[in-house]
Amino acid sequence: MASDMQAIFRQCFAAPALRSYAAESISTFFFVFTAVGSAISARMLTPDVTSDASSLIATAVAQGFALFVAIFMAVDVSGGHVNPAVTFAFALGGHIAVPVAIFYWISQMLAATFACLLLRVASAGQAIPTTKIATQMTGFGAAVIECITTFMLVYTIHVACDPRLVSSRKKSRIGGILAIGFVAGAGVLATGSLTGGSMNPARSFGSAVVSGEFQNQAVYWVGPFLGAAFAALVHQNLVYPNTSSQLSDTQPGNGSGEVIV
Amino acid sequence: MASDMQAIFRQCFAAPALRSYAAESISTFFFVFTAVGSAISARMLTPDVTSDASSLIATAVAQGFALFVAIFMAVDVSGGHVNPAVTFAFALGGHIAVPVAIFYWISQMLAATFACLLLRVASAGQAIPTTKIATQMTGFGAAVIECITTFMLVYTIHVACDPRLVSSRKKSRIGGILAIGFVAGAGVLATGSLTGGSMNPARSFGSAVVSGEFQNQAVYWVGPFLGAAFAALVHQNLVYPNTSSQLSDTQPGNGSGEVIV
Amino acid sequence: MASDMQAIFRQCFAAPALRSYAAESISTFFFVFTAVGSAISARMLTPDVTSDASSLIATAVAQGFALFVAIFMAVDVSGGHVNPAVTFAFALGGHIAVPVAIFYWISQMLAATFACLLLRVASAGQAIPTTKIATQMTGFGAAVIECITTFMLVYTIHVACDPRLVSSRKKSRIGGILAIGFVAGAGVLATGSLTGGSMNPARSFGSAVVSGEFQNQAVYWVGPFLGAAFAALVHQNLVYPNTSSQLSDTQPGNGSGEVIV
Amino acid sequence: MASDMQAIFRQCFAAPALRSYAAESISTFFFVFTAVGSAISARMLTPDVTSDASSLIATAVAQGFALFVAIFMAVDVSGGHVNPAVTFAFALGGHIAVPVAIFYWISQMLAATFACLLLRVASAGQAIPTTKIATQMTGFGAAVIECITTFMLVYTIHVACDPRLVSSRKKSRIGGILAIGFVAGAGVLATGSLTGGSMNPARSFGSAVVSGEFQNQAVYWVGPFLGAAFAALVHQNLVYPNTSSQLSDTQPGNGSGEVIV
Repeated sequence: MASDMQAIFRQCFAAPALRSYAAESISTFFFVFTAVGSAISARMLTPDVTSDASSLIATAVAQGFALFVAIFMAVDVSGGHVNPAVTFAFALGGHIAVPVAIFYWISQMLAATFACLLLRVASAGQAIPTTKIATQMTGFGAAVIECITTFMLVYTIHVACDPRLVSSRKKSRIGGILAIGFVAGAGVLATGSLTGGSMNPARSFGSAVVSGEFQNQAVYWVGPFLGAAFAALVHQNLVYPNTSSQLSDTQPGNGSGEVIV
Repeated sequence: MASDMQAIFRQCFAAPALRSYAAESISTFFFVFTAVGSAISARMLTPDVTSDASSLIATAVAQGFALFVAIFMAVDVSGGHVNPAVTFAFALGGHIAVPVAIFYWISQMLAATFACLLLRVASAGQAIPTTKIATQMTGFGAAVIECITTFMLVYTIHVACDPRLVSSRKKSRIGGILAIGFVAGAGVLATGSLTGGSMNPARSFGSAVVSGEFQNQAVYWVGPFLGAAFAALVHQNLVYPNTSSQLSDTQPGNGSGEVIV
Repeated sequence: MASDMQAIFRQCFAAPALRSYAAESISTFFFVFTAVGSAISARMLTPDVTSDASSLIATAVAQGFALFVAIFMAVDVSGGHVNPAVTFAFALGGHIAVPVAIFYWISQMLAATFACLLLRVASAGQAIPTTKIATQMTGFGAAVIECITTFMLVYTIHVACDPRLVSSRKKSRIGGILAIGFVAGAGVLATGSLTGGSMNPARSFGSAVVSGEFQNQAVYWVGPFLGAAFAALVHQNLVYPNTSSQLSDTQPGNGSGEVIV
Repeated sequence: MASDMQAIFRQCFAAPALRSYAAESISTFFFVFTAVGSAISARMLTPDVTSDASSLIATAVAQGFALFVAIFMAVDVSGGHVNPAVTFAFALGGHIAVPVAIFYWISQMLAATFACLLLRVASAGQAIPTTKIATQMTGFGAAVIECITTFMLVYTIHVACDPRLVSSRKKSRIGGILAIGFVAGAGVLATGSLTGGSMNPARSFGSAVVSGEFQNQAVYWVGPFLGAAFAALVHQNLVYPNTSSQLSDTQPGNGSGEVIV
């Protein structure tokens, strides 16, 4: 028992693991900084209306670009999750140890909060935009929407890191990262006016902490986590069966050669 | 005769075929969800005007990104058609058996309808935008426009999956998928105000079923099907001749190694 | 003399050459259809203002996407020029025979005119937008701007098709085509309000023929041709010297294996 | 001592070095021409408002596309810095000799100034837009924002040119250049309304010289230089340790085979 704890401790605090947390922090900081910053920048330019279709495009393109870059920056160190729902799916599939996943979550949420805090301070008090549900919608409807978009995001990630496709050179790694960036941009464009197009609990959490608005926060955790779990299930059992054991392991302790995506 | 029926039945309901239908359904659901959702999201932000150029960009970029992702998700399982007109062109060229093609069509249309239905329910009754013809245009003019844009889409798909180019490594698979996503985005930007920029009968069908507006529905079937057939003809006979026999076979029963695009 | 003429005749009307003209026609048709169609579609959505920044984005993104696709479609058949100025630069550098280049020009201009004509007819008489010079600018200033943007376009094309880079696998072909699409999009965004951001005499010619407005047409020929010639000169003599003899030959008669870009 | 000076002189004025300065000049000219030109073009279309979210998108997309192209054009000759802050980071890391770096800086600043001057003259006196700080922000806050965005840009560049990733074919060169273009686009979208989203002292310097507005110029040098230095430090010591000695050398005198990115 004690030795188990020691093994977990060593796994979680070894140098590669610490580097993984740093990589997740930097990438998540960048993603949330861009997602929230682009919403602030677009809003500052159209002060008389709450928002318009241009603002939607601005934040969608920003998030698509930023997710591509965030994963590109971190993929060879931490796997480039940048999203607690993605880490959850990989933990469910057994591709990352649960104790390590917990430190991924902590890194992601701290980095997201710090990005929002820094934007607020540096912009001299601009309100931090949170992900909001359209007035006519119910929380349940919003959770369904977030579940669907996160399903698509996590399903794309699973296809992108299927080792049969990558190793046989049918799909390049960069193509997979591009698909992940594009699915995020498409998701924001499709659902930005309905739920804010979060697909990422850390993004919703960080802006909620700094703005103090926790209304409907549960929607942005339940929806994405269910969608992520469903995506892992469908990928590994229905459409691309028999590959779960071959998915590269993202545990940071296993050397430099075995990262996903 | 009976054994023929049995052979067709086995072909259409073998495990790889069923996985193909699942892949087509997921990808078409995602594409139509994004195409229709982005139109809803853009419209909700500009309530006082019917639409503006920003809305056009939003839905065009969303469809470009989404088609790239939809094909990326399905290409190794079903070939990634995501569009009844594409399936029609491959059936014409003999690259997919007609009975299987029929199940592709059913999968695509059901998935498109389900995507529109889900958007309507989850958004608490937002009207589902259909593809519409500009008031001053005739149905014939609209069919010509849809024929041209679908010709370009399907011609690009044929170039992208020409095995001489892919296997000689002159063109990467991901580059071909990117070209297909871009041609869709360009087509929506070019014709969005004229015909809605459909190029995809399933997208027009699904939104028509859920909104109950079947006006001019024929335009969105005749135009794309003619354009797709014309593209297959021009590619295989005029510009890139003698390759039709070498195009990879998309029949789902032929193993994992021989999918197109 | 007579045998020279016969040789030229054979070169210009051999089957590969005819396929090249077909490929140039299809690609130029698509590019101009998208460039002009996106300007029409954006304008139809904002009837009360002449245009706004959204329209600029719409046509710039459309042209960036469309040029990528147009080159992708034609590159293995004709080299994918899609632009008389590009053909001019390759003729200057000796990479395409002048008689063949003349047929390229004819194909490009006919295709561009046909695209504009078809848009006018199918859209029931929408005015065809031409490339225009900002009121406060002189024709000379506009020619300088067109010269600079076309220089960048053609210089990028020369870098993209430098065989030392492509064959050593430092740069992928698809990456080069992407750079060409992006340089076109960037050029339209940078100069759209100043000169219309043409960079392509065929695009300006086709819309001028159909709309009947030939004002300043010379600007869109002199500027791009000078810029293209200057780009070929700088690439082959200053920045990347000693490679002119190694540039792949785009003459359509030389088999399938030796196309540029 | 004298021979040291001679060696430096030879290094700085050898043919490959001169070609590097030409490549940096062309690429920086193009980047600044596009960044400033797109701001002018967008502003000319919306004369009654100072700017709106569409203008932000226009200049962000233009800069993302242009940086991709600028690096693509120069990478095999000069390394494709296009930015004094990037040259500073590589000089700090020992990847470029300081005397050569000084000529890079001169090339970049002259090219940026020339681009702004030419835009002013050719556009018949349009005011050249400078990077400005939002009225409610302090210079310190703006420097922090510029530091963060430049950190992300330069960190991405270091990941993109890490030779372990490129040579092992885990990441393609073109994918790295794409990530750099996207991080620039995302940075402009995130901070365009706060600081103008410069990340590039040459871009701010050139427009300041031509417009005569040097207010807050220090912000656009201190912020990016600190961010670039910090990125080099974090990349080489914390997240990707032990690779500094393996980073390819960008000194222009070392032959054609050893360029970064």
